[in-house]
Amino acid sequence: MIDFKSFYTLSYGLYLICSEFEGQKSGYAGNTGFQVTSTPSTLAISCNKDNFTCGIIQKSRKFSLSVLQKELDVSIIGDFGFKSTKDFNKFEKHQYKTGTLGIPVITDSCIAAFECKVINEVDCGSHILFIGEVVESEKLSNEPTLTYDYYHEHYKMVAPKNAPTYIEPELLKDDKKELITTNDLPSEYICTICGYTYDPEEGDIAAGIPPGTPFEDLPEDYTCPICRAGKDFFREV
Amino acid sequence: MIDFKSFYTLSYGLYLICSEFEGQKSGYAGNTGFQVTSTPSTLAISCNKDNFTCGIIQKSRKFSLSVLQKELDVSIIGDFGFKSTKDFNKFEKHQYKTGTLGIPVITDSCIAAFECKVINEVDCGSHILFIGEVVESEKLSNEPTLTYDYYHEHYKMVAPKNAPTYIEPELLKDDKKELITTNDLPSEYICTICGYTYDPEEGDIAAGIPPGTPFEDLPEDYTCPICRAGKDFFREV
Repeated sequence: MIDFKSFYTLSYGLYLICSEFEGQKSGYAGNTGFQVTSTPSTLAISCNKDNFTCGIIQKSRKFSLSVLQKELDVSIIGDFGFKSTKDFNKFEKHQYKTGTLGIPVITDSCIAAFECKVINEVDCGSHILFIGEVVESEKLSNEPTLTYDYYHEHYKMVAPKNAPTYIEPELLKDDKKELITTNDLPSEYICTICGYTYDPEEGDIAAGIPPGTPFEDLPEDYTCPICRAGKDFFREV
Repeated sequence: MIDFKSFYTLSYGLYLICSEFEGQKSGYAGNTGFQVTSTPSTLAISCNKDNFTCGIIQKSRKFSLSVLQKELDVSIIGDFGFKSTKDFNKFEKHQYKTGTLGIPVITDSCIAAFECKVINEVDCGSHILFIGEVVESEKLSNEPTLTYDYYHEHYKMVAPKNAPTYIEPELLKDDKKELITTNDLPSEYICTICGYTYDPEEGDIAAGIPPGTPFEDLPEDYTCPICRAGKDFFREV
């Protein structure tokens, strides 16, 4: 028996992974980045084949990994995590530099950055595991790291469908039912595009929605603070 | 240029990884464990070839991964992280169960456990990256997870030599010199066996050493709280 809740106990950070091939820049937000060896220094990332960036890395054989800081404007995760490079220019809105390898390295809201040459590529079914040798790395600030745990708790987001850690909502449904029967508060609503959860207890301060506002009372033109989807894209949880 | 301090910004948990082959149980503590795909659920671990457990996994083609909880008796990390299965019976002292795959699964101080069949093995030089399909997983408690960050900060330990995240002390020396010249406190001493740092400001409460005790004033029979090495094994940092 596999208990999917056990997967939530694994610890991750949150990273922006970028690459470029023949002038086409690309990037996404991912939680799997880790050191494989120390001599030489190598990093591994797990990249969904459906990510546009995956194909770019396969062709360019290089990637950058920037480490997000704990306190940030969550729209950077919305832009990199829930929008495709095909439809949206992520590099117009967020600060980056062109690294030693000639690829974009995001510096906006990041505390460290690595540039890697791909030395191995492992087909893992839905994902490709890229192993990269670090050719350049830099500490950008002393801010604390954004952990995946903090991101879940604080920014109320679920993993996007392409993430290794994505879990079908149905598999977690029983828990949620329990939650609903044990309190009478107005329901939370989840954005079906990006997974942002609107919590009526907290409201949406940035959008001028005070705590205690039920989803039903939100203005008709309310949009998801992460991916800007309209109210119709939300469903009750 | 590679700035090794940038590697400290990556987030990890702390895991006990075990296996068994022909009656020989083996296990170690490692910080690299992460999900690669969700359908099917697969986990990757980076295992030093010098770890006795590495050879056992190569032969048995299976491993268990148990997730350590935040508050624990640090001797479990000392036993699994800094002692070899060849010299010390880790399974006599710490509670485990025999899992579905017939291998030991540590339950002592752990909040979740996975059992995996190796489906791929990638030679990465000093380490082997094992990719395992999860055949069984279980949530054991609701205690919070031990992150690698918390472990470093709270338990004052460095990575053992076999860890992917190990950094030669020389590479970090400049920082430490700075620290020493900017204050006049008694020096910290590091255990050369396991990397535990004795901090005179904190003392060693468990051993009855009050805060403010310089290393020089410790009793002659003082031993490292992690690996039990004597005073002679410590050096000034």
